[in-house]
Amino acid sequence: MATSDKPAAGAEPVSELTTQRLSLYLRCLDQLAATGVPRVSSKELAASCRLNPAQIRRDLSSFGAFGVRGVGYSVEDLRRRLREIMGLHRQHRVAIIGMGNLGRALADYGGFRRGPFQIVALFDNDPSKVGLRFRMGADVQDVRTLPEVARREGIDIAIVAVPADAGCDVAEALAQSGIRAVLNFTPALLELPPGLKVTNVDVSVLLESLAFFLANDAHD
Amino acid sequence: MATSDKPAAGAEPVSELTTQRLSLYLRCLDQLAATGVPRVSSKELAASCRLNPAQIRRDLSSFGAFGVRGVGYSVEDLRRRLREIMGLHRQHRVAIIGMGNLGRALADYGGFRRGPFQIVALFDNDPSKVGLRFRMGADVQDVRTLPEVARREGIDIAIVAVPADAGCDVAEALAQSGIRAVLNFTPALLELPPGLKVTNVDVSVLLESLAFFLANDAHD
Repeated sequence: MATSDKPAAGAEPVSELTTQRLSLYLRCLDQLAATGVPRVSSKELAASCRLNPAQIRRDLSSFGAFGVRGVGYSVEDLRRRLREIMGLHRQHRVAIIGMGNLGRALADYGGFRRGPFQIVALFDNDPSKVGLRFRMGADVQDVRTLPEVARREGIDIAIVAVPADAGCDVAEALAQSGIRAVLNFTPALLELPPGLKVTNVDVSVLLESLAFFLANDAHD
Repeated sequence: MATSDKPAAGAEPVSELTTQRLSLYLRCLDQLAATGVPRVSSKELAASCRLNPAQIRRDLSSFGAFGVRGVGYSVEDLRRRLREIMGLHRQHRVAIIGMGNLGRALADYGGFRRGPFQIVALFDNDPSKVGLRFRMGADVQDVRTLPEVARREGIDIAIVAVPADAGCDVAEALAQSGIRAVLNFTPALLELPPGLKVTNVDVSVLLESLAFFLANDAHD
């Protein structure tokens, strides 16, 4: 699990855990829809998600989605409702900043080809990479043009995959870009203006969490 | 933020949020130690971590680390205690499975060179990659040899970075390997035996969480 830059800010982590569960429900519902299942009970949904039914009912009712006792939820209605709640009924325009191995892996990630996230721009600060075309069809642009390109292209999400020492320059460019949400793989906290949502994915933090498990569950 | 394969299992997410906070405290303490600060109050630690002091006192006291009123915590003592609690006082031997762009990015990740996580083996199922040597000095081995190599080398953590369709084969090899903790970047849930701890990092789920923020905070 990754860390937000405000991991203990009260509502913040809960909300992220909730959105993760909503993502999971949506994946299960997509599978049910693909196999032609018209209705599902919270118990059946729980079994296919490996979650508990009470939690599912609580989450869904808090967003105004109600099943009918003995009948359950309409799979199609619930999918549509969840997609709206999560802002997935519209396309999001995404930029990747940093075209090293990680940036390339993300650019080639198959999951983006369908679905609501469209990679529309790639950036790097290395002149030898600028102009290169990657598999998904975008040219690498100079990161100094990020604010201008982001506004022109209506980019709303950035994925940052630069080395730690490039974090400050990228944070500055992001602050001027109008981009409002950032998925940060850089092993440094980005100093971004308030109102800009950042989710940090720090591999060291994730490994430390596993080490903690190994240290505290050695009898398993 | 990524998702565990049991995101709603009660204690599970809380425990991961706690370990993330412990990681963050440790980073702040490392910085304080580097600048020669001998003691720190929960209030000062909170300011440098951007967290709240009451949360810090609660977390640390739950692990038996107590500050002294008016004096605070000894930076060195608290660092040592946290490293022990988190199982970071010993080396962890880590394998990377899948040497595509993402696996290479992880293998080259600078953060591993110092610290308690040592990458000791790389695996792939592509014969043209087997035998290649990467920057951090390990040769790529055939993933079919994973169970044998893992036991011989005492590997306790695996980082999985294979495409979704290779997930099943890898899960099978992991089940026989004696490895007890997995950081999974594959966009598929790995079916692993109970007792094996898995943390999933799913880029789509992370982006969906950001989309939710954009949909529900548009006035920001």
